[in-house]
Amino acid sequence: MATVTLMSDEEAAGIPEVAAVFADIRAVRRSDVINDFWRGLAHDPATLKRTWEGLKAIMIAPGPLDPLTRELIYMAVSVTNGCSYCIHSHTAAARAKGMTDAQYGHFLAIVGMANQTNALVTALGIAPDKAFQVS
Amino acid sequence: MATVTLMSDEEAAGIPEVAAVFADIRAVRRSDVINDFWRGLAHDPATLKRTWEGLKAIMIAPGPLDPLTRELIYMAVSVTNGCSYCIHSHTAAARAKGMTDAQYGHFLAIVGMANQTNALVTALGIAPDKAFQVS
Amino acid sequence: MATVTLMSDEEAAGIPEVAAVFADIRAVRRSDVINDFWRGLAHDPATLKRTWEGLKAIMIAPGPLDPLTRELIYMAVSVTNGCSYCIHSHTAAARAKGMTDAQYGHFLAIVGMANQTNALVTALGIAPDKAFQVS
Amino acid sequence: MATVTLMSDEEAAGIPEVAAVFADIRAVRRSDVINDFWRGLAHDPATLKRTWEGLKAIMIAPGPLDPLTRELIYMAVSVTNGCSYCIHSHTAAARAKGMTDAQYGHFLAIVGMANQTNALVTALGIAPDKAFQVS
Amino acid sequence: MATVTLMSDEEAAGIPEVAAVFADIRAVRRSDVINDFWRGLAHDPATLKRTWEGLKAIMIAPGPLDPLTRELIYMAVSVTNGCSYCIHSHTAAARAKGMTDAQYGHFLAIVGMANQTNALVTALGIAPDKAFQVS
Amino acid sequence: MATVTLMSDEEAAGIPEVAAVFADIRAVRRSDVINDFWRGLAHDPATLKRTWEGLKAIMIAPGPLDPLTRELIYMAVSVTNGCSYCIHSHTAAARAKGMTDAQYGHFLAIVGMANQTNALVTALGIAPDKAFQVS
Repeated sequence: MATVTLMSDEEAAGIPEVAAVFADIRAVRRSDVINDFWRGLAHDPATLKRTWEGLKAIMIAPGPLDPLTRELIYMAVSVTNGCSYCIHSHTAAARAKGMTDAQYGHFLAIVGMANQTNALVTALGIAPDKAFQVS
Repeated sequence: MATVTLMSDEEAAGIPEVAAVFADIRAVRRSDVINDFWRGLAHDPATLKRTWEGLKAIMIAPGPLDPLTRELIYMAVSVTNGCSYCIHSHTAAARAKGMTDAQYGHFLAIVGMANQTNALVTALGIAPDKAFQVS
Repeated sequence: MATVTLMSDEEAAGIPEVAAVFADIRAVRRSDVINDFWRGLAHDPATLKRTWEGLKAIMIAPGPLDPLTRELIYMAVSVTNGCSYCIHSHTAAARAKGMTDAQYGHFLAIVGMANQTNALVTALGIAPDKAFQVS
Repeated sequence: MATVTLMSDEEAAGIPEVAAVFADIRAVRRSDVINDFWRGLAHDPATLKRTWEGLKAIMIAPGPLDPLTRELIYMAVSVTNGCSYCIHSHTAAARAKGMTDAQYGHFLAIVGMANQTNALVTALGIAPDKAFQVS
Repeated sequence: MATVTLMSDEEAAGIPEVAAVFADIRAVRRSDVINDFWRGLAHDPATLKRTWEGLKAIMIAPGPLDPLTRELIYMAVSVTNGCSYCIHSHTAAARAKGMTDAQYGHFLAIVGMANQTNALVTALGIAPDKAFQVS
Repeated sequence: MATVTLMSDEEAAGIPEVAAVFADIRAVRRSDVINDFWRGLAHDPATLKRTWEGLKAIMIAPGPLDPLTRELIYMAVSVTNGCSYCIHSHTAAARAKGMTDAQYGHFLAIVGMANQTNALVTALGIAPDKAFQVS
């Protein structure tokens, strides 16, 4: 079930911009697998390239947050959006980056709690305390 | 602007269950301040108590995720839900727990990227790769 | 703060379709007040009329759900969408229709719980049990 | 997987209000197909009729926005809500109304970008610039 | 499709905290069935227990809102979040608690209308009328 | 109310990467005004630059969708996310690009209708018709 076809390696080979991104994904990920997200996105090479470059800079390049923390933030967004594909792929990525069962359980508890208190304060309609406002 | 009044310390003093929670918040937080969220929620003492006990167990008690990581997950949920109060309070909490400007910038980049790719894959309607599925 | 002006009674008097809807709102609500939502929507008379007629049929005309239950459902949607205007107006409407403080507290607890379990099951990615599926 | 049965033409034939809507859908769409959405909604004839009449007035009748633009707006809402059925049906409708692959790619890029900047500004908690406020 | 395995009764029997919750679910629900949500959540016994205890207090214990009204509120949240599992399970629960087809039709109409007006007022950016604000 | 300070031109002048983006915004927009969104984002120059470059490529550079259609898609996403800043800024942008009152009214009607039918079909839990599925 999808609104697009998933581009095969054969098709990708005929579109230089796509072939270059697929090759870079394989090199950076050190794996021959190209996930279906990239195969679906490949019909628009500019968006494919912009998305992959952004993801590489933010999720893979060195930065002030460690790889597992990045995945936990990504998972939290994806759960709150209800994005099934994203939840599955980033939960798998978090496990690959060392997430333990205990950490996953703790993550779930936080995400559940945050969604609960978000709903409560939204229902109450309370403005942020002055002390929380930077400007 | 709110759908409820914010319970004062005087009112709270007259409701033992509320007074006990307010006292515990002050003890655990080592601060005399009770945030407006708790003052708005106090009209339903059972929900006040259940919410505070849950938050204490998940966000404050020792656990497999460190305090800053917990706040980043909470912030990611709150941003995605668009909960202004929660965003302000947990961004302040993250800073109090040591979040640097560079880490906050990295957090923003991840949350923006995750919301972008969530939208893209949702639009494409692609099911999670088999390799991501545990069962 | 708004993206449109709020139409005054003077302006409305000059647009027969709007004037008719405003008159009907006053008659049905037995109040001279026209809420700002209708004043903002009035710039598009067709949408104003369609929305008011739908609301009257669903929220005011006799039906199998009682008036307070209807407001609680409306509030639950509005909280989950984070629509501040809707939360405020329908919480006020629910109180006008007899919602007690205890019922409001119970409502808050359910909405918080539902948002929590929604997030948990979404994170787990579990499909509905066969027994829950009608077709 | 559904919470209701999908009403067959045989069943619909026995409920005059439903039969009339199904006939009108077939006439307006110039196709014998009744999509599953209408078959699921048909158990409540009043909601079926109100929804179809609204859709016809807004999406099919002449109006200031052209048919493809209407579908792109519908798709943007559906992607942001994560409504799989709606995404699939309105992407198909947009293609039927002439959406090219390049336009679809551009649409995806905008929807991804909008979700990204929405998250960023929401995280920053910044109020709309005065210049953007009409009243 | 899930991000976790569904814990069997055999596995649960080896984890006292999980076994106790499963036994309590069976006793309270007077049914031998343990829904998949609990089986997925069981890998984190603390979250399993906290969630079940909260649900029991809010959805099953006596309270100011009747059982069907509670389910309708839960359904409204779940639909607005787009949580397929929750929609299916709580629609089934509502039917088990006496929801008629007419009530379900009315519920759908309200949820559709609320999502429509939420979007309209959010687009207009109108602040809540003063009369709706308690503090 | 914000979680960050809004960077002044004086501060920006001291950070070459930020100064360059601000200068480019002014050149491309042919206006001296830098909106508050950019001033808030400027504390993380890499995200500022990446976001502006993406926006410029997608919303300003020539492409298969005309400028007004792009804004309408952006507005539809922003309304559905409930992002007040984004709604205000892109509604203003749409007007600057020629959106008439009639087109805005039609836009509102579509966004309201789409949110209504999204909720209805999500509640019904119906899978996309086979005919809508490309793969």
